[in-house]
Order: sequence, then C-alpha cells, then structure tokens
Amino acid sequence: MSEQTPQPSPELFFQTVNAYQQTAAIKAAVELDLFTAVGEGARSARELAARCRASERGVRILCDYLVVVGFLTKEGGGYGLTPDSSVFLDRRSPAYMGGTLEFLLSPMLTGGFEDLASAVRKGGTVASEGGTVAPENPVWVKFARAMSPMMAMPAQAIAGIVNGAGGRKLKVLDIAAGHGLFGITIARQNPEAEVVALDWPNVLEVAKENARAAGVAGRYGTLEGSAFDVDFGAGYDVVLLTNFLHHFDPPTCEGLLRKVHAALAEGGRAFTLEFVPNEDRVSPPVAAAFSMMMLGGTPAGDAYTFAEFERMFRNAGFSRSELRQLPATPEQLIISTK
Amino acid sequence: MSEQTPQPSPELFFQTVNAYQQTAAIKAAVELDLFTAVGEGARSARELAARCRASERGVRILCDYLVVVGFLTKEGGGYGLTPDSSVFLDRRSPAYMGGTLEFLLSPMLTGGFEDLASAVRKGGTVASEGGTVAPENPVWVKFARAMSPMMAMPAQAIAGIVNGAGGRKLKVLDIAAGHGLFGITIARQNPEAEVVALDWPNVLEVAKENARAAGVAGRYGTLEGSAFDVDFGAGYDVVLLTNFLHHFDPPTCEGLLRKVHAALAEGGRAFTLEFVPNEDRVSPPVAAAFSMMMLGGTPAGDAYTFAEFERMFRNAGFSRSELRQLPATPEQLIISTK
Repeated sequence: MSEQTPQPSPELFFQTVNAYQQTAAIKAAVELDLFTAVGEGARSARELAARCRASERGVRILCDYLVVVGFLTKEGGGYGLTPDSSVFLDRRSPAYMGGTLEFLLSPMLTGGFEDLASAVRKGGTVASEGGTVAPENPVWVKFARAMSPMMAMPAQAIAGIVNGAGGRKLKVLDIAAGHGLFGITIARQNPEAEVVALDWPNVLEVAKENARAAGVAGRYGTLEGSAFDVDFGAGYDVVLLTNFLHHFDPPTCEGLLRKVHAALAEGGRAFTLEFVPNEDRVSPPVAAAFSMMMLGGTPAGDAYTFAEFERMFRNAGFSRSELRQLPATPEQLIISTK
Repeated sequence: MSEQTPQPSPELFFQTVNAYQQTAAIKAAVELDLFTAVGEGARSARELAARCRASERGVRILCDYLVVVGFLTKEGGGYGLTPDSSVFLDRRSPAYMGGTLEFLLSPMLTGGFEDLASAVRKGGTVASEGGTVAPENPVWVKFARAMSPMMAMPAQAIAGIVNGAGGRKLKVLDIAAGHGLFGITIARQNPEAEVVALDWPNVLEVAKENARAAGVAGRYGTLEGSAFDVDFGAGYDVVLLTNFLHHFDPPTCEGLLRKVHAALAEGGRAFTLEFVPNEDRVSPPVAAAFSMMMLGGTPAGDAYTFAEFERMFRNAGFSRSELRQLPATPEQLIISTK
C-alpha cells in the first residue's frame, strides 16, 4: 500500500450548503450594477464602491467572492470582467441578462425549494394549485418581460434554421409564446412569414408589444388561452414549442403533440427548444440539473432525454426527430417532421 | 485569425442564479436520510424511495441532481456514495455532518443574505443588533449542539499538536468554546491538561455536558460571559481561539489578542483556527468565500490572510506566528508564541 488514501474533505458539503450565498451574490451584483461599473473602467474596490454607491468593504468582499465563483478576474488588486460577464452582465451589452432575475428569482420559482424534502416525498411541487403551470399564473407575464434577453441568441439561431436560405412563405404557430421572441425573430428575418402566437391574454400583451416594436405586427396574430384547449387551426409549416413540454408528464405532452401534428401541413415541422440531458440523466450539468427546477415548481414536469422526446413525437404521429446543438445556450433544439 | 473565438455562454450565470437549489437539495437529502439509505445498500430510485418514504420520481430527480453536484455516483441506474459522502453524510459514520445544517442553515445565518445588496452598501450585516455577534445570541447554542461533528477531525489534529509527545502539565483557556470540543479533546488526550472554557452561560451548558460525557469534567472549569469583558486569569500555557476572530475587525481582534497575551505564561502559545485565504483573497475557494459569510452575518468580520493575522498578533506582543495545514478541514491553524 504505497498510495496514500485521499483525505476525506467536507469542502463540497460546506460549499453546497452555502450555495444560496452564490445566488445572493449574483443578485446583489446585478442590483448594484457592479458589472457595468467594471465594464466602464472602475477597477479597484474603492472606485467601484464610489460608482455603485456602496461601501468599499462590501464591494471588496463581493468582488472577491465573484472572482471565486468565476464572474470577475482579479489582477494586482484590480477587478475585470470575464468574456461571459462582459456579454451577459454589463448593462450596455445587447445580450444583458440581469433582468432575467426578475423571473428566475421570483417567489413563484424559488418558493418551490423552501421545503424540497416535501416535494421529493410527494413527487412534485408542493406549491398550491399546480405551481408555475396554474392557469393564467402572473409569473408568465414576468417571464415574458424578463427572459427575452436570455433567448435572443437561440431565437436568432432557430430563425435561421426555420427560414433556411430565403424568404419562402411560412405559416408559424408559436405555442406558449411568452415574450414572442422566437416567432418575432422568424418574422423579422423572413418577410413572407406569418406568425400566430398562443398564450394567456395577459402574456400576449407583452408579445404584441414586442411584435409592434419589431415592425412585424401586421403579420402577427394571436390565440388566447391554454395550448391544451384552444383550437390551433391548421396548415402550419412550423410549430414552435419553446420551453413548454418540460412542465408536463409524457402522456400530457403526447396529447399536445397529437394536436400539434394535426395542425401541421404535410411535411411541416415542430421545433422544440428544451433542456435535454444525456441518457445518463446526469450530464451535461445544466440540462441535467433542470429536472430539479421542474420537481420544485411543477406537479409532474421533467427534463426529458432525446430518446424520451423522440418516443413522444413518434407516438404522436411524427415521422422523425433530430437533435441540434445551438450556440450560446445550454438548451438544444429538436426538429420533428410530420 | 485562425483561432475561433469561444462562444459566450450563459451557463455559469444560470447555474449561479439557481445555486440556491443546491442548498435545498443537500438539505432535503439530509432530511430524508438519503445518504444513509444508499450506504445501507439501497441502489435504485425505487428502492431508495421505499426506504426514505418518498416518491420514486422525487428521489430519482434528487439523486440525479446530487450526482451532478458531486455527492453521489451513478452507474447502470444504481446510485452509490462518494468517499466523502460515506464519511460525512451517512448517519452511521462517526464523522456524520448532517446535523450541522441546524446551525449552517439557521435563519440567523441565512437571513443576512436575503438582501445582500444592502449589506454591500452598508459594509456589514443588515441584521438587527449586530447579527451573529449579538450578546447571548441563541444561535450559538445551536452552533454548540450542531457543529461538533465538523470539528472532530480538526480537534484531534490540534490536540495532537498542543499535547506534543506526552502528558505534560498544561493549563488551557478555550475562548468562545461553543461545544467545547477543542479543549475537551486536549484533556482527553492528556490527563495532565486542565481546561477553562469561556462562553455565554447557555452555551457553556452544552460544553459541560460534552466534558462530562468525555469523562474530563473534573479538569474542566468555565468562565461565563463575553471574551472582551471577562477576566481570563493568568498563567495559561495554551489559549484556543477557534473560529472566533473572523467575527471582528482588526482593531477589535488586536485588543482581544493583547488580553490573550497577558493571560499566557512566558513561552505560552495561542492556537487560532480560521479560514485563511491566500494573499490574493480569492483562493483557496472555501477560505476566500468565507469573507462573504462574514459580510452577510457580522458588522465588520472577515476572513483574514496570514499576513493580517501575523500583524495582529505581532501588534499584540506575540513574538512569532506560524501557519499550519490541518487534515479534513478547509481551515488552517495559526500558532502564535508569546
């Protein structure tokens, strides 16, 4: 036995128990607009404190902590932005994501984790009335207002794939449209595209605002209500299912997908944006961990593997599904053809 | 420009915003005694669900998440303990740490992070009456009852260093003794050691219980009150300062260290157990991140570097200080000689 046994270490336990402080730190940094201050050239804790109207001690401890977690660099006592912080956390960046905290840390989402043991016992959210999937839950208006920055890059990528080479005529149904960004981006890129957005009436107000601002309101229709109840119409070339199926169990998803299948024209395609873990369900980390979000927040939702999605789409009548990587997102795209 | 620019990724942001779910997951796993169930041989989500009286879906999602975070292994659909989980999270292990959550996740500690931006603005805790350092704060009884498992291994190591080769006569003062484990372990190892433990009266009840259970009550005295006010007496060979100085600013620490210096016999030594970040203040991660705990929970505490400790001890009259690594803890030991 010449090899040493590695020392047992409580570090991971300690770090994980205290992980809530990471959430608090990124929230505080966004609230203080710290990343913008660094991006604008403030470097030392003293300069940043002046810029953010905060104490030097507080800013120094927060910045050091953000270096430990990976959002800032530190050299010679001066702080700097990482490439990702520069793109996503400097308010001057078009991809600024600070606003997403309004949704991601809304009590409706975080509340499901206050007593997670009970959710594990029950097998689903212990929030009243179905958690985030309750009808007309106002959290989805918050979602629509807050989350579009996180979706800007994937929406561009999906629109490119949907529209292909040029401006051919397209009839698009955007289910649970939220901010509407996915459909709107298709319509902006393709003047021959017409979009119908489906969501709760209060959420659609946000999508319509965004469509007007994008100059596509003339090709933007809406359907109010639940995707499970509303008549979709027919003859769609494209149906968008972005961040929707993870809220429901497979039979519910399949029922909806049969409806989607019926609404598509021959050869039409469903585009599903989702957190898709590998078959082991424990990688890659962000997609695999998304299951936990669904346990805390929904009665029966999940992060489904590609094999599970493929089966649901096949059972609903689709001929084939393929998985596509997208840039700048931990999510993946599933393209399913009627 | 043949090199590709790396894609910007929002993954770290997303993971950090959702880090509070890591806290919730480890807490839920401890509450369900999941790690003990795995240690006892339950492997599949179904078996674990039966053992933990929980739903299979909830257990499967929790276990997969704990694999992602690093507390479980997964092979062929069966879960297993990591070496660290086996030592620290299986209730049958003598080093079981599950009970530390009672303290680490007590509202007194977590409350300081509900509005961290305000603490950064202020430069210290926004909790009323000084946060965790308020006189006779009952959180320290919780600490004394909950935290001894985390300190068992470092206490053994420190006692070995303090006692050295054999049973020489030692007079030990244990400041802010809490559970009393550090002094008690010295007394257990060395029948010639006499220990005086100082803490709030309600906390000393726990230390006295532990001293009785360890069979050293006959050599275990107590001093009730604040370390800043109580007369220490004199002639100590050893003064223990474990996890105490980080609650205070350097002038306050220096004042206390002068009092410690006066209480020590010639050649006596102070043993300080602390989270000691490197001079860059951003490594190693656990010690560096501990500053954040002090920002959220105390008016002016910090995780001090060795250079800072060395200066405080020198200013208080100590001739030299040295830094020692300890096994099985992210903390380090500073030995300062009168």
